[in-house]
Amino acid sequence: MPTPDELRRILERYIRHMCESDADGIMQLYADDATVEDPVGANPIRGREALHAFYTAAVPQLMVEITGPIRVAGLECAMPLVAEVTMESGKSYIDVIDIMRFNEQGKIVSMRAYWNPAEMRPQR
Amino acid sequence: MPTPDELRRILERYIRHMCESDADGIMQLYADDATVEDPVGANPIRGREALHAFYTAAVPQLMVEITGPIRVAGLECAMPLVAEVTMESGKSYIDVIDIMRFNEQGKIVSMRAYWNPAEMRPQR
Repeated sequence: MPTPDELRRILERYIRHMCESDADGIMQLYADDATVEDPVGANPIRGREALHAFYTAAVPQLMVEITGPIRVAGLECAMPLVAEVTMESGKSYIDVIDIMRFNEQGKIVSMRAYWNPAEMRPQR
Repeated sequence: MPTPDELRRILERYIRHMCESDADGIMQLYADDATVEDPVGANPIRGREALHAFYTAAVPQLMVEITGPIRVAGLECAMPLVAEVTMESGKSYIDVIDIMRFNEQGKIVSMRAYWNPAEMRPQR
């Protein structure tokens, strides 16, 4: 079973892949039947093909930065972030907390992102 | 349905009640059949009587402080905290993220706390 610090390193890799717009790299961190619910309350998407399409569309406009300690409870993690989103109208910022659940092999089986699209703001 | 800022105010009240060791005040924020999983991975406890006993035992030794923005997604919130725990051996500190789910009446129906008992530390 992965240790807390091993899970943190996987999440730091996830963040690095996000910032490098590397959807393939992100997909290496996921289990085959994983789900993503982003934001929480949206319909979850499931499976390698759907997740790859989701990240391929999302990463070019996203920069993310970890803003505090990653909390670990067993195989689940909570990671505070700020996201910078580049749109035609300019840059927007939003505070996010990602909840990731891992399997015993250290692959992500679910990701749920806590944020509110209505609260994006023009300044960091 | 409660607005994001209304949910934030309820959570700020929760934190205030925690710091004032007011288990009765905390229970006013919960729905009757609510569950608490603290830390995530522990057996959830359920219902007004069990939750009241849990908070009555916990609050005398706890001080908590919000350490970043409360993220809101619909009726779910993610709240970053640091907890100061006073034990016979002295004070310990731990970073926590609480996930709270509310019902449409603005009562908490579930709380899940992300932290790792093995990572408590002597300094803040």
